This record gives sequence, C-alpha cells and structure tokens, in this order.
Amino acid sequence: MEYETPQFFHVMQYAEGADGDTIDMVSGNPDWEPPDAIREGLHSYADSDAEDFQYPPSDGLADLREEIAARRNVDPDRVIVTNGTGEANYLGMAAGLDDDRGSEVVLIDPVYPYYLGKASMLGGETRLVAANRDGGLDTAATCDAIGDDTALVVLNTPNNPTGAVYDLDAVRAVVETAADHDAFVVVDEVYDHFDFSGEFESALTLDADNVVVTSGVSKSMAITGFRVGYAVFPSTLVEAAKTRHMLVNVTTSRPAQQAVYEAYRETDPDYYAAARDRLESRIATFTAALDAAGADYTTPDGAFYVLARFEDFPGTMANVKTLIDEAGVAGMPGATFGTAREDWIRFALVTPRVEAAAERLTDYFAD
Amino acid sequence: MEYETPQFFHVMQYAEGADGDTIDMVSGNPDWEPPDAIREGLHSYADSDAEDFQYPPSDGLADLREEIAARRNVDPDRVIVTNGTGEANYLGMAAGLDDDRGSEVVLIDPVYPYYLGKASMLGGETRLVAANRDGGLDTAATCDAIGDDTALVVLNTPNNPTGAVYDLDAVRAVVETAADHDAFVVVDEVYDHFDFSGEFESALTLDADNVVVTSGVSKSMAITGFRVGYAVFPSTLVEAAKTRHMLVNVTTSRPAQQAVYEAYRETDPDYYAAARDRLESRIATFTAALDAAGADYTTPDGAFYVLARFEDFPGTMANVKTLIDEAGVAGMPGATFGTAREDWIRFALVTPRVEAAAERLTDYFAD
Repeated sequence: MEYETPQFFHVMQYAEGADGDTIDMVSGNPDWEPPDAIREGLHSYADSDAEDFQYPPSDGLADLREEIAARRNVDPDRVIVTNGTGEANYLGMAAGLDDDRGSEVVLIDPVYPYYLGKASMLGGETRLVAANRDGGLDTAATCDAIGDDTALVVLNTPNNPTGAVYDLDAVRAVVETAADHDAFVVVDEVYDHFDFSGEFESALTLDADNVVVTSGVSKSMAITGFRVGYAVFPSTLVEAAKTRHMLVNVTTSRPAQQAVYEAYRETDPDYYAAARDRLESRIATFTAALDAAGADYTTPDGAFYVLARFEDFPGTMANVKTLIDEAGVAGMPGATFGTAREDWIRFALVTPRVEAAAERLTDYFAD
Repeated sequence: MEYETPQFFHVMQYAEGADGDTIDMVSGNPDWEPPDAIREGLHSYADSDAEDFQYPPSDGLADLREEIAARRNVDPDRVIVTNGTGEANYLGMAAGLDDDRGSEVVLIDPVYPYYLGKASMLGGETRLVAANRDGGLDTAATCDAIGDDTALVVLNTPNNPTGAVYDLDAVRAVVETAADHDAFVVVDEVYDHFDFSGEFESALTLDADNVVVTSGVSKSMAITGFRVGYAVFPSTLVEAAKTRHMLVNVTTSRPAQQAVYEAYRETDPDYYAAARDRLESRIATFTAALDAAGADYTTPDGAFYVLARFEDFPGTMANVKTLIDEAGVAGMPGATFGTAREDWIRFALVTPRVEAAAERLTDYFAD
C-alpha cells in the first residue's frame, strides 16, 4: 500500500525555522473565537456524573445526531458523528471502494491532498479531472471520466483550494452519471458555512442514494482540534459505515461531542455571519494586493483560501520558500493540490495579519 | 469486504427492554470516578486561548507523547496518541497486514470480538488458537499456528475475557517465532493497570522490532468516552502508521488529550491501587457466589471479567436472555468470544451491584 503524506507540515516547519517574522497563510485553522457555548459546554460537561464520561453510542450522542439530522433535514439514522470531517471522508471513500464497484477514484484537480492519500490508502487508483478556469466543475469532462471501473467521485464545495461553489446542476449531472456506472459520490461540504455567493446548495437536496455528504464544525465553530464531524449516508449504506466507524474508532470523543451539541443549541446565526463578514473583508484586502502585485487569481465564492499566480514566479516549493525568506509570507505550493495549478500558490486567509501579508506581497512583487 | 459486528449491543438492548430490574454485567465501562485532574483539566482547557482549540500535532500533544514515552521507557517518536486503544489496535493490525507479509491473522480463542472484525475489515483471514484451560497462552500451539502466510498475531494481556496475565516468556516465544516468519505481533495491554498477580510485564520490555504495543487510559482513568489511547511502534514502522492515523483521523480530540495529560501528571498511584482493591473485593464476592452455584470458573489474575460455566446451562444467547429475564443479571454469551468458550458466560465486574448479582445467581442456580 502506498501513502502520500501531505506537504503542509514541510512548509510549516520551514516557516517556523525561518530567520524573520513569517505570516502563516498555510494552515486552515480559524483564528477567531469559538462560540461561547463551546467553553460553557466543556465546563458543564466537566462537572457531570462519572457515567457521562463513559462510551456514548458508537454513532454519536443521540441528541447531537438528532440536531445534525434536523439541520440537514435527514433521518437521524443516516447520520454518523465522526472524528472530524477527516474521518467522515475516510468512511465515505471506504464505502465507495468496498465490494466490487471498481477501483478508480475520480478527483477534481486542483485537489485537497488528503483525498489522494485516502484513496491510495484504501487501494484506489486516482484519476484527476481538471476544474474549470474559475475552479467550478467541468461537468462534461468529469462525467466523461466516469466509467465502469469508477468506484467513487469525490467533490468538495465550497472548494479548498479554489474557493469555487459548485452549481447544483453540475453536481446533479455528476451524481447521475456516477449512478449509471454504479459509483458513489462523496461530497465534502465542510466549508458550508463559508458561502459568500449565497448560491451554495447541499448535495443532500438531490436525495440520491449514491451520495454521501460529509461536513463538520471544525471550521464553522473554529475548533479544528476537537474533531467533531459527521457523514450522512444513504440508508442502504449506513450500517456498513457504522460498523467500520466502530471497528476503527469505537466512537467520537464525548467531551467534544457534548460541547458541540451545546454550541449548536446556543449559538446565534450572527456568530456565523460575523465570520463570513470578517473573511469577505480579508478577501477584499488580499485580492487588492494581488491586483497591485499584478497577480492572477479568482475571487473565492466560498471557503477561506485564495489561489494566486505571480508573473515569472511559479508556485514551486522553492519559490514558496523564497517568499517565506524574502517576503515573510508562507503559502502552499500549487503542486500540493495536483497538477492543474502547479504554477499557483494557495494563501489561507485565517490569520488576523492578512493586511500585513497583503502589504508584504505588494512590496515584494513591486520590486 | 466482510464485517463482523460485535454482539454487545444486542444483549444490552435486550437487557434494557427486559421487564424486571437487570444488573448490567455486559459492558466494560468502569463505574467509579475518574481522577479529579480529569475534571480540573477540562475546566482549565475550557478557559484556554482559542488557538489551543485548533489542531494539535497529528501524532498527539507533545507533552502527552513525552509523558507516555517516559512511562513506557521508549523514544517519544515511537508513540502515536490515538482515538482510544481501539484505533491503536486498528493501526497496529493495519501495519501488519500492509505489504506482502501474508494475510493470516492468528488470534487467541477466546478472543475479544473487535479483533475479528478489524482483521476482516482489513482483508485478513483469521485463525483461532485455543488458549490454555486457565486462559494463558498455549505457547506450542500458538507458535505452531504461525507460518509464512501469517501477517500478524494479536495478543491481549491482561486478557479480556479470561483474566489471564500472560507469562513474558510465552509472549517472547510467540514474538520470536513471528519474527522468523516476518510476522508482526500486536500486544493490547489496555488492562495493564489491572494486574492482581503482580506478574504482568509489558511486551515493550522485549524490545523487539516486530512488536506493536497498544494501550490507553479508557479503563485506568475510567473515561471510556474520552477516546485517548496510544500505540508504541517499532521505529521502522512508526512513520507509515502516523500517515495512516493522519489520513483516517487527522488527530485525536484535543480537550480529551489535554485532560489526560493533566491527569497523568496529577494522579497519585493510590488512585489506581484503590481501583484494583475494589475489583479484587468484587472478584472474591463474585467467585464465592459461583462456588455456591456450583459453577466452573478461573479466578482472574487481571482485567475485570470473570468467565463462568454453569452446569446444564451453556452460555448461549438464549440462556443469557433467560438469565436476564429470570435472574436479573446480564452477561455475555461465550460464543461472542470465538469457539473455545461457547459454553461459558462472561460477567464484567464494573458495577457497584456485584454483591446483588452474586446473590441473584446463587439463588437462581440453587433452585
């Protein structure tokens, strides 16, 4: 079995070892406060009876599953609370590669590198299909890539790294073509709270029996370390996925589940709106700097990343290191995300220092 | 891929639906208080900076890994903090079944049923070797079962369900035979704090490069719901296991990791000794009742289960249900644990009602 280790750590280590001050635009950790109810939920859990410290149901605390199901408008039996969206994607991809459905995994390029690693770990062969120039789904090319050996398609909307929000009709076309070839579609919607276009629609609205939707609260509640995500499976597939979840993890950590449940109940929509506003303002600041630097980019419709291409400065690992050393800004090399954006660099906007980073880039490329 | 779902839930559901009062001797949840530092650790974590709510290192908080490494006398680089011992066993077994080492998984019968499920999920073929009459390793039979198609042997000491504490020389013989056939040995030591014999020795003391030792604090700190365990890999295997851990779970939930770190630091040895004393007293009470009922059993040297066989009352699922309905005591059918103890019933002693259960069984079998 072959593994592919993401390159994030390599860049972060280099940035930490750099001489000067570096603005971290590599990692996808929100830099703002979690909802107050997260802290309050942990305090209150810490004082609960000892029996509340024991195994919750394997598929998640009943209250939390029902809360998620109500929000996603699905039967609670279809929901598995997972150790973050990472485990949810693993379960969805494992379900697609089970049985004799085929071995090919169709991924959209640029691609979130964990999908490549998971596909490989699970014995799948990956096939990359280039996204449109703006990051949107190339529906025809994606559907053409799906054949009888296709086990699985993985989509991510709002998208990391492009910021695209997929058109629901495009997703529907992929899902229907996949169904024709007995293939699954995993749709990772972990950035669902970060839609600036107002046009994001969940793949759950398709009500298709070959779709697994994954999401979580790592980004929306600014608690990437808590590891609370979920997968919504079609009812025909959910039992096998629950068994795998049980055999791998037994269940998801209960203090985190309880705090997230409280935060779902207590958190006002304003909390999420404030995060969106903050990001939109950062996007405006950062893209203005990219304009000043003469860079090519697409303004993101969702998530919190910007892909940029600088003239005569392709986004190689070497150039990313140069940017750390000479401009004090750390981004991710485009080659981390497949082959379609090798010349680009991804910048994560989850730092309060976006303005300073924008100035540094403007200055650097003005030289 | 075939899965085997453990039968625990079936018995627990039946017990919950029973008319009368039932004493739960099914689940392995400690019924006593966690260390105070668990609650204090959660409170203090709840008030920490928002950045402490973000991703910890994938392989675990550095302080926690160092604490575990110091306690186990190994290099911290060999330690992965996992989502409970369940994930640690999954990682260890996956490592054994990677590459072309073979496909056979040798397990000791009676067997913890999750090992069967994990082996099957990972594509392994299981081969059961009966334990000795007292639950100890049948060294000759185990070594004979190891051949060139053996990928992996899984041992559990102190043992669930037999209560046996394996002799280190027996473990060494198995490890050496496995090495001769390029096979791994996963040694699950999650009950390491529940050794009544004083003779438990960790397989880490063998310092063998084909051994993965797993453990956790679910049982020792009475926090099965927190999901904090660990695996200690040989240095040659640890990087691939870290990659798999990252691709499946990204990392282990941070509130739980932080609380466990505090509890490691602050908890007096008296806490663990009190748990052992409590269990030894329960074992004495319960085995006296088994004597009175004319049952066959072995007094456990470790862990917190007793396997018992009643005359003319084999431990079938039907008889387990009869015992729930007519005696008000719920145990686990022996067939859950393989074939070697099909006539037996496993009783978990992690309930404050052991004395009442003992009386009920004495009365029932005296009729």
